[in-house]
Formats: sequence, structure tokens, C-alpha cells
Amino acid sequence: MRKFAKILSGAAAIAVLVPSIALAQDAPTLEGLAATVEASTINSAFVFNTLLFLIGGFLVMWMAAGFAMLEAGFVRTKNVSMQCLKNITLYSVAGLMFWWIGYDLMYTGVDGGFIGSIGALTNPAGEEISFFGRLLGGYVYAPEDAGTGYSSYSDWFFQMVFCATTASIVSGTVAERIKFWPFFIFVLLLTGLIYPIIGSWEWGGGFLNADKYITMFGSEFSDFAGSTLVHSTGGWAALMGAIILGARKGKYVDGKVNPIPGSNMTLATLGVFILWLGWFGFNGASQLAMGTINDADSIAKVFVNTNMAAAAGVIAAVVYTQLRYGKIDLTLALNGALAGLVAITAGPLDPSVPAALLIGAIGSLLACLTVPLLDKLKIDDVVGAIPVHLVAGIFGTLVVCLTTPEITFMAQLMGVLAVAVFVSLVSAIIWFAMKLTIGIRVSEEDEYIGLDQTEIGVPAYPEFVNS
Amino acid sequence: MRKFAKILSGAAAIAVLVPSIALAQDAPTLEGLAATVEASTINSAFVFNTLLFLIGGFLVMWMAAGFAMLEAGFVRTKNVSMQCLKNITLYSVAGLMFWWIGYDLMYTGVDGGFIGSIGALTNPAGEEISFFGRLLGGYVYAPEDAGTGYSSYSDWFFQMVFCATTASIVSGTVAERIKFWPFFIFVLLLTGLIYPIIGSWEWGGGFLNADKYITMFGSEFSDFAGSTLVHSTGGWAALMGAIILGARKGKYVDGKVNPIPGSNMTLATLGVFILWLGWFGFNGASQLAMGTINDADSIAKVFVNTNMAAAAGVIAAVVYTQLRYGKIDLTLALNGALAGLVAITAGPLDPSVPAALLIGAIGSLLACLTVPLLDKLKIDDVVGAIPVHLVAGIFGTLVVCLTTPEITFMAQLMGVLAVAVFVSLVSAIIWFAMKLTIGIRVSEEDEYIGLDQTEIGVPAYPEFVNS
Amino acid sequence: MRKFAKILSGAAAIAVLVPSIALAQDAPTLEGLAATVEASTINSAFVFNTLLFLIGGFLVMWMAAGFAMLEAGFVRTKNVSMQCLKNITLYSVAGLMFWWIGYDLMYTGVDGGFIGSIGALTNPAGEEISFFGRLLGGYVYAPEDAGTGYSSYSDWFFQMVFCATTASIVSGTVAERIKFWPFFIFVLLLTGLIYPIIGSWEWGGGFLNADKYITMFGSEFSDFAGSTLVHSTGGWAALMGAIILGARKGKYVDGKVNPIPGSNMTLATLGVFILWLGWFGFNGASQLAMGTINDADSIAKVFVNTNMAAAAGVIAAVVYTQLRYGKIDLTLALNGALAGLVAITAGPLDPSVPAALLIGAIGSLLACLTVPLLDKLKIDDVVGAIPVHLVAGIFGTLVVCLTTPEITFMAQLMGVLAVAVFVSLVSAIIWFAMKLTIGIRVSEEDEYIGLDQTEIGVPAYPEFVNS
Repeated sequence: MRKFAKILSGAAAIAVLVPSIALAQDAPTLEGLAATVEASTINSAFVFNTLLFLIGGFLVMWMAAGFAMLEAGFVRTKNVSMQCLKNITLYSVAGLMFWWIGYDLMYTGVDGGFIGSIGALTNPAGEEISFFGRLLGGYVYAPEDAGTGYSSYSDWFFQMVFCATTASIVSGTVAERIKFWPFFIFVLLLTGLIYPIIGSWEWGGGFLNADKYITMFGSEFSDFAGSTLVHSTGGWAALMGAIILGARKGKYVDGKVNPIPGSNMTLATLGVFILWLGWFGFNGASQLAMGTINDADSIAKVFVNTNMAAAAGVIAAVVYTQLRYGKIDLTLALNGALAGLVAITAGPLDPSVPAALLIGAIGSLLACLTVPLLDKLKIDDVVGAIPVHLVAGIFGTLVVCLTTPEITFMAQLMGVLAVAVFVSLVSAIIWFAMKLTIGIRVSEEDEYIGLDQTEIGVPAYPEFVNS
Repeated sequence: MRKFAKILSGAAAIAVLVPSIALAQDAPTLEGLAATVEASTINSAFVFNTLLFLIGGFLVMWMAAGFAMLEAGFVRTKNVSMQCLKNITLYSVAGLMFWWIGYDLMYTGVDGGFIGSIGALTNPAGEEISFFGRLLGGYVYAPEDAGTGYSSYSDWFFQMVFCATTASIVSGTVAERIKFWPFFIFVLLLTGLIYPIIGSWEWGGGFLNADKYITMFGSEFSDFAGSTLVHSTGGWAALMGAIILGARKGKYVDGKVNPIPGSNMTLATLGVFILWLGWFGFNGASQLAMGTINDADSIAKVFVNTNMAAAAGVIAAVVYTQLRYGKIDLTLALNGALAGLVAITAGPLDPSVPAALLIGAIGSLLACLTVPLLDKLKIDDVVGAIPVHLVAGIFGTLVVCLTTPEITFMAQLMGVLAVAVFVSLVSAIIWFAMKLTIGIRVSEEDEYIGLDQTEIGVPAYPEFVNS
Repeated sequence: MRKFAKILSGAAAIAVLVPSIALAQDAPTLEGLAATVEASTINSAFVFNTLLFLIGGFLVMWMAAGFAMLEAGFVRTKNVSMQCLKNITLYSVAGLMFWWIGYDLMYTGVDGGFIGSIGALTNPAGEEISFFGRLLGGYVYAPEDAGTGYSSYSDWFFQMVFCATTASIVSGTVAERIKFWPFFIFVLLLTGLIYPIIGSWEWGGGFLNADKYITMFGSEFSDFAGSTLVHSTGGWAALMGAIILGARKGKYVDGKVNPIPGSNMTLATLGVFILWLGWFGFNGASQLAMGTINDADSIAKVFVNTNMAAAAGVIAAVVYTQLRYGKIDLTLALNGALAGLVAITAGPLDPSVPAALLIGAIGSLLACLTVPLLDKLKIDDVVGAIPVHLVAGIFGTLVVCLTTPEITFMAQLMGVLAVAVFVSLVSAIIWFAMKLTIGIRVSEEDEYIGLDQTEIGVPAYPEFVNS
């Protein structure tokens, strides 16, 4: 078709946008005009809301590239191709699983409960679709969504990229020693079941919003964009993986910690800049609406607080490492930015700017302090995802009770604990079950040679390696 | 001027936006108010449509960086600077040529024909501008474009970045052995003539939309965002270039294929992520309008299908290479994402999600199967642009007849063939003419040394190279 | 809270968006409906304007990553981590300083003068906040901003990223030899004082807009997006730094210039693509409003001119270096793009496309000619920031008098000179004061070893370095 055909000019546009106005123009009536104004206003709000989800969605999708670069920069040369492969594949798998079952588990028929329903799906003719029939029929969207105020496709896209983020968090921690396929069995379960169930508790209208919960703990649980639901979910899964998988060979020898430097600091830096950029979508579009002055103003405030928390995270880590170690640690400065971002994510709307700065700085310092702690426990987290996403995520969630008056500490704590227990337990079971059966760790020799050669056959930098 | 001067507050804003309302406020009349509502609605639609073109445009512009990184990652170290130079220069040249003659050839006075007109141009005073006078006067935009429903500048920008994409496709295939200046003569002709003529056939309202075509083949040709018009156009041009230029020294020796590994897999991965992100603009903004609920919903559906086709492309390539070769090939996983994206581009709006997944997966597998086929034919495609953009592009175009009921297979096939014949023929003539005159290939010695040293003098990684 | 709670459907949405319409629906009155239409129109304009600032803001924020990559690519391997650290830290510090004092200095109570006021700040209760109390209380935004037509948070975010850009310009020039902490003292003063004061002269409504100035020089000073206010401010500060700091060891020996090649051309290329992308936000969103057809059209024209100036910059540098040196210099092609962008920044709205091309090409050529000139003067500018941001910035500002009829050459020249004198003088004093006290340059041995090892302890590419 002609590329311009759809662009309507003047009178034709108004006729399509608000059909009643054509009439109104000739012999307008007050009632007709009022209906036109309503239709036009609803139309604009729908477009604004959908646009917010799409812009937010592509920014969060871009975070997948950020994780890929960060992790490729933090592993050794011999495992870089593998880290690239894992990150693009997990983003793909997350989309598939969230479409197949995740979205429904998270949002369909939760109503104060612990899990959504995947049986509620019907095809366009109104017939119920079987679980396996979903693979062919998939999620059926309403063809038009004026009633909800946004396109359901845009909502699905925006929710899906959050699911993918959760999986990205895990892949860095377990890098350099996990087998490819077991990792992807875990990703399938994480993105298809674990994250959607966690998400349903809160964003799907589950028990963390229920009257019972409010009665018991003084308020509902509050997690604006997912410090707990996304970041600590990924963090717990990563922690269990790191423990059950064990440390990389040579990291902890005779009670000594041997630092294993990442291969490419520019990639890691680029990754953090990408994540920082993407976080404007992550937090900003979690306002979920942009049609009104209030919503637009809130999104803007979220942008500012998100940026300031990250900035404070960087500065805190720079100053801390200078004072503590006598040299500034770039890797901690980078992770400081991320920790600041994770910490503000649970409540980026309510804090004042100084509060956001403080939240970011404390999140960053907690991450800086966790790094040596993990080493003491011989938990080998290749990229620092546990300090950043788990520790700062928990802190950020708890601190909401100080910045949002109606939220109680207990409500936040119980939500954090519920996620901790469920994700740790389920993750541990999955990792263990795989360890005992198919095995999750590559052979010692393969680990020494590097996964790029043994599992992929495509070295990342074939012309550069000296060793 | 004061930076805030243009922001209008309350009453002033309304007076500018919808002049009649000031009057209406004092003593409103029904007719006046109706006119105000119409003006306000048209205003919003214009802004939404323009914004769509600008956001889509900057996302597709960003794809130029994606191609640069992909190609820099897939060539050897000694040709990396050259690949960077070529990509930033071709994006620049495409802008220049599309402004000078391309846009007019594509959109001015096509009307069912085979080519637009570059003589129709007039200056602001209404006088016709000569062909060379265009270099000084350029394309003259209407100062205000309310009649078309979008800013013509935004439309030009969005169309231009598609033209640049076509050229990006070629540069990867012919890398590592083509001379700089002959390549740019080809780019001049591709972006100023070949692509605009192809584009005019369909998007400019040319013969692929004409009544005659519909009568002959059952429907018009349908190519939503350019699987054929952009991707296979670039693909045919690249194929002719690869054949006429010949393979790189050492690639095919004594009937054996020697794989030449790319120098930097993280760059290639980054490139694919950039392209994936940019594709949301490429396909999404090809809806060409965002002012209504229906358009916003369509854009969102295009986002989802585009993402799912890419995801399926990755997964298909990962599974296929694991089964076929026993190891997962990262380069094919990356190209699988791109092939999925190219395949869905001809029709990202109509398929259901499962259909989009299937289209992406098949596109990816076709690309995977084409790679060894090209090697058998001794056609040396450095980055795999022919499997990705040509093969998946043809497949994606043909499959539209299955997902869009009113489109016939014959209409799609004939469009594909018309593009194939025209682009192959013209490209082959240009490549050959240059080969016979100025030469298109660097000397054997220069190829061995690498183009960075011989043509640029700036090595990409001066401190790293071992050899 | 339930993730969808805020999305309002149909009737509920209209009730919130334009409260009067609920009434109007039942028994609409003409006056009520007129008020509804006004509210709805103002609402849309507010959202559009805020969205423009946010999209523009995140694009300019992304430029920080572009500078980081550009500079990391142009320095030697041994200083790459340092360059990454500096860039992420300066972006963070700029946010902090601009929030603490910069924004107020730039925009509060300037009124034709030379500097804003930081004493005007009041807390929500209306009490004045002391200078140090600001650290705790920060900038107090109005909770709702309907009166200004955009969210003040979005405005702050957009203005802040410009402040950060100014600091980014400096860091490249003084790379590879400056101490970390003295550099950051300079960044603190640049982003908290120097840039905000410069900005206040023009964008804050200062003396460059004043009646007196217009009377003296024929027009106000005009700098659309900051060729002078941002780029030459950064350029002068960088120039003073380079002079006072001195050249890198080994750059100028016995009257000979030894080129020191950058370590990574793909990163530099990526950086330029990022900056080019970000510039659409830099220039486009400097239109400062998007609610009307005219504003949207202007933004689109700015996009086109910005792109064409950069394209012309690339082409000019490619052709020039081919003719002048016999080889195409990739680094000059990259800097040519940036010089074209800087040159068009002072006036991207008024020129025709051919004029924009010319401005970009001349800006690029001036930068190409400045590079050897600086070497002759033994001013060691590691990344070429002075040719790009200072020289092209001055040219771009002066040339506005040719493309914008009401602007005089004298008004532009005097603005350029005022910025030159103030920034050079203040920067020189700061650099000198630090040189004489704490010292700004690392020891000769540390410079030889590289800053990554001596100041950071994290090498950028630990597995690659040969030497």
C-alpha cells in the first residue's frame, strides 16, 4: 500500500478520530459536542499511555544489552562469547516464556492470592484454550482496548522486559563455570514460573495487596518498579546458584582470595551507562500512565530521583574506595551506580531529591561492603550481582517506609521475606535437582580452557589473546 | 532569547493552540467551540504523528551504529577502522543523496509508474529548480504541514534513515577487500537512484500499487516496513558485489573453506542488540500514524511481533546449531536474531504472536542453511548479510500472503522478482563497470596488510595486535 | 499497589482528566464545555512539553556514554579505565552540583544581570533556606506545574544534562596526565558555578538578552542549543587546562610532533554514533515545547538540519584528509561529524538544508585545520575537543547572523567574547591555583606507567596488553 495512505489530512482526520464531530460541524448540538470532547480526550490519554509503555519498554529492552556488555566486560576473555550468547538467548527465552505462561500467571485471576491462572485463556471465539494449545494460540489480546486506557500489547511488552531483566541478573553471577543448557532450564523456570508468581503477589493484585495483609502489617507492600519483585528475585536466584555451583577454580585458594580481573573495563562501563539509560524507562514508565498533568509530573520526578540515586551511588563508591583502599576502584564505582539505581527503584516517586541521594549513596555503600563479605563466605559472584541487586534491592524496599508515609516497615519486611523464602527455596531446589541429575558445572578442564572454546567454538577476540 | 520564552502558560497556551477559544471563553458559541475542538484534535494528531516519525527515525538512525559494530566485530583487526569509516560515511552520504534526489525520485509524481520525478521541484516563490540548482536549493519543505497531519521534515528524516539502512547492508558483505572510493560510488548510486526507484514502486505509489497490478496478480504488493524494499534491495546489491568482487584471499583454497573468524564478538553482539532496538522504530513507526487508538494499538502489536520474531530467530539458531554442529554458534545466533527481524518486517502487524514466532524461526533457519550454501558457491559474505537480509527478506515478503488474507502469493512473488531483476541487473552493471575501469579490489598485498594501514593509516587497536 | 490501579478506563479517565465533563455529560452547558476544552488542551500541551524534555533529556544523558567511549578509544590502553571512571563520575558530580546550586544560579532572579541568586530558595513552608541547608533541602519544586506548561522536574533534568555535557568536553583534552582529584575540583566549580553563570547570561534571561545589549549591538545574542554556552564554554576550560597542564611526555620532542595513536577506534566510532544520536535530543528538545503544530514542525526541522550538518562534517573531513594527506583519517572523520554537530547547534532551526550542510562542512574543515595548529603551539589535546567544541562552536555561533535575519554579527561576536574572557580567566585561575598548591599533574613515572595502575588499580584490558 502507498506509504502515506494512512496519514489523514484535516477534515478526514477529525472524522476518524471523533466521528461525531463531522455531524457537529454541520449542525452541532451541545450533547454531540460533549461526546466528541470526551472521545477526543480518551483518545489522547490512550495514545499517551501506550506511548509511555512503548518508550519505557524499548529502554528496558536496551538494558539487556547493558547486562550483556557489563558481564562480557567482567568475565575473562575465554568466556566472553558465552556471556554474549547467554544474554541474547535469555532475553529471547524470557519473551517466549512470559508470552506462553508468565503473563497469565502474573495477571490473570490472582485476586489476593498466590498465583494467577493459566486456564482462563479463551480464543477469539470465546472457547477456552488448553495449556498446550497455548503454544499455538498464545495470549489472545483484545483487538481494541479503549476500555483499559492503553494498548494491551504495549502493556505486555513493558511487563515482558521486566521479566527478562530478572533473568539477566542471574547470568552474571554464575558466569565462567555453568553449563549452557542447565542454565537455560533455570531461565525457563525463572521467567515462566518464579518471576511471574512473585510478580502476581504484588503487581498482579495478589496477597501483598490484600485486605488481610494490610490488616496484619499495617499497609500493603509497596514496590514501585521492582527493587524486590525484580532485583532481589534475580538476586536470590543468583545467590542460590552461586552457592550450589561453587566458586570458580582458583578464586579461593588456601583461604586466600585471588581477584580475577574482568577482561574489558570499557565494555563494563558502557554496560552501566546503558543500564542507567534504560532505568529511566524501568522506573519512569512504571508510573503506568502519562495522560494527565499529574502523571507526567510524576514521571519527570521519577526521572530526577532515579538519576540522582545513581549519581550518589557513583560518588559514594568513589569516595569510599579512595578512603578505604587508597585507590579508586572502577568496578565498585560502576556497581555503585547500579546499586543506587536498584535502591531507588522501590520508591522513586515519593522521596525528595536529598532523600533520593541518600538512598542511592547508602545502597552503593552496602554493595561495596557486601563484596568482601561474599568473598569471606567464598560465594563467587563474578559481576557483583548479589551486592547490587539483592542487597541494595532489599535496602531500597525497606526504606520506602521512611519516604512514603502510609507504608509500614513490617509490610515491606514481610514482602521482602516472602520473596526471599519463596525464590531461595524454589531456586535452590531447581539448582540442586539439576546438579544431582544432568550436572550444572562444566568439567575442570573445560573451565580452564574456557567456555568459548568448549561449548561455543567462537572465541571472542581470536587475534588478541596472548596466553 | 530566554530559554523559557516559548513555554506558554495557561491562558496564553490555549490562545495559541486554539485561537478561537479565547473568544469562546468570553461568550462561547456552539459553532466556535466545535471549531476549537476540531483544531485541538487535529493539533494533537499532528504532534503525535510527527513524534512517531522522530522517535522511529532516531531509532533507525541508531541502527547505523549497530551495523558499524556488527561489521567491525565480524572483520579481522586489520580492517576494523575501515569498516568504522565506511559505516559512518555511508550514513552521511545516504542523507546527502536522499536529500538531493532520492526523496523526490521516490515520492514525487510516481502515480502508478516506475520512477518519480526530480523536475517537479519548485522554490518558495513557485519557480521550478534545475537539477543542479537543487544542490543549492535542496528539497523545499512546506513551512507548515497541517494539511498532511505530520511535519514533512519528520517524514523526510524517517524515510532517509531507511535509505541509509539499505546501504549499510551492502558494506558488510564486501568488507576486507573493496577499495574505499569505488564502494562510495556504489553507495551514491544506491542511495540516490536504486533504492529510491525501488521504494517508489510501492511506498511512492508506483506500479506495485496500481490497478493494473492488482488486476493481474490478485492484490497489490504488500511490504509493511521493507523486507523486500529495504532488506532484499540491499541483499541483491551485496550479492552482486560479492560475486563480482570475488572472495577474500585464503577463504576458499583448494576446494576447502577456511573460516576467517571475526575479531570481536562483543562488538558484534552489541551491534545486534542495537539493531534489535532500532527495529522497534523501523517496524513500529512504519505504521506512519499515532494519533488514534487504533494506530497506537497497531504500533504496540508491531513492537510485540517484531520482538517475538527476533527472539524466535535466536532460539531457532541456538537449537539448530547445537543439534547440527554439536556446539552453539554465536555468530549464527546473532544472525538468527537479525534474520527473524528481517523476516517479520514485511508484515509485522497482521500475524498473531505464534505466527510471528514461526516466521522469525523459519527466517533464522533459512539464514543458517544459506551460510554453507554460499560457501559452496564460493560467495564470500563477510558478515552474513545475504542470508540475513536477502534470504530472510524474500521469505518474509512471501509469507505475508498467509498472514494477511487479502494479499496474494503472486502479488508478493512478482514484487520480489521485480526488485530482484532490477537491483541485481543495475548493481551488476555498476560493479562491473567499475571493475573494468577504476577497479574495485585492493591489491593482493594491500589485502594481506589490511585496509586500515593501506587506505586509512589508523589501526583500530594499535597496542593489541600480536601478529 | 496493584500495577494497573492507576490506569483509568473510559468514563473514570475523563472524570479525572477534565473533571467538569462529568457534569457536562449529564446536562452540558456551553460555558462548562468551553472550560473542559481548555483544560483538556492545556493538559495535552503539558504532557507533550514534559515528554519532550524527558526524551531529549535521556538522549543527552546518553551522550555521557558517548564521551566516555570516544575518550576511552582515543587514549592509550594504560589510561582507559581512568577515562571511564572520570566520565561516569563527572556526569554524577554535574547532577549533584547543578541540583545544589547550579540551577538556581542559572535561572533564579537573573533578570538582565550577570548571575542568578541562590538565596531565593524557600522550603515548602515558605521559609528561606540557607546555603548549606540546601544540601539537605535541595531545590524545592512546585508540586504541580500547570502554570508553566511543563513539569519543572523535566525541565531540571533537561538543563542538568547540558551542564554535564560541558564537563565531558574538558575531560578528554586533559586526559592521560591529570590527577583524578584536582580534575574533580575543577568539575565541581565548572558545573556548580562557571557553566551556570554563563548559562544565566542567555538562557536565564541575563544581560545577553537585555535591552541594553540589544541597543548596543543591534540584537540579542542567539544560541539555540549552546554552541557557545555549552561547547565553547567546555572548550575554553579545556584549552586553559591543556596549556597549564602541559603536553603528555613524548608528544612534542625536539620540535617534532609524535602522534600517539588512540587504543581503540571502534569505541571512538561508537562514541561518535552515540553523540550523534544524543544530539537529536540536545538540539531538538531545545525547541522547549512540543504542544503545537508549529513546535512539532520546528523540532522536526531541527532534527533534519542537525543530521545534515553532521553528515556534511563527515564527508568534508573524508574528502579533505584524502586530498591533503593521501589517506583518509578516521579520527578526523569522527571529529568532523562532531564539529558539524557543534557548528549547527547555535542555530539549527533557521537554516535551509543546504545552509546546514555548508555550516557542518565548514565547521568540520575548521576543526581539521585546527588540529595541526594546536600541535604547532604544543597544546596537547588528546581527543581533539578544542578543534571540535571550541573552534566549531565559535564558528557556529557567529554564522547565526547569516541564517537568522534579525540577529547581528556584533551581538554574536560580543557574546562569544564575553564567554571567552570569563571562562578562560576563571578556568586559568582555578587550574593555576591548583597547580601551585595541590598539583594537577601526575608524576613522570606515573604517567609512564599509566593512570589505571597508579590511581585506580584496575587495568582496562588486563589480558591483552603486549608491552
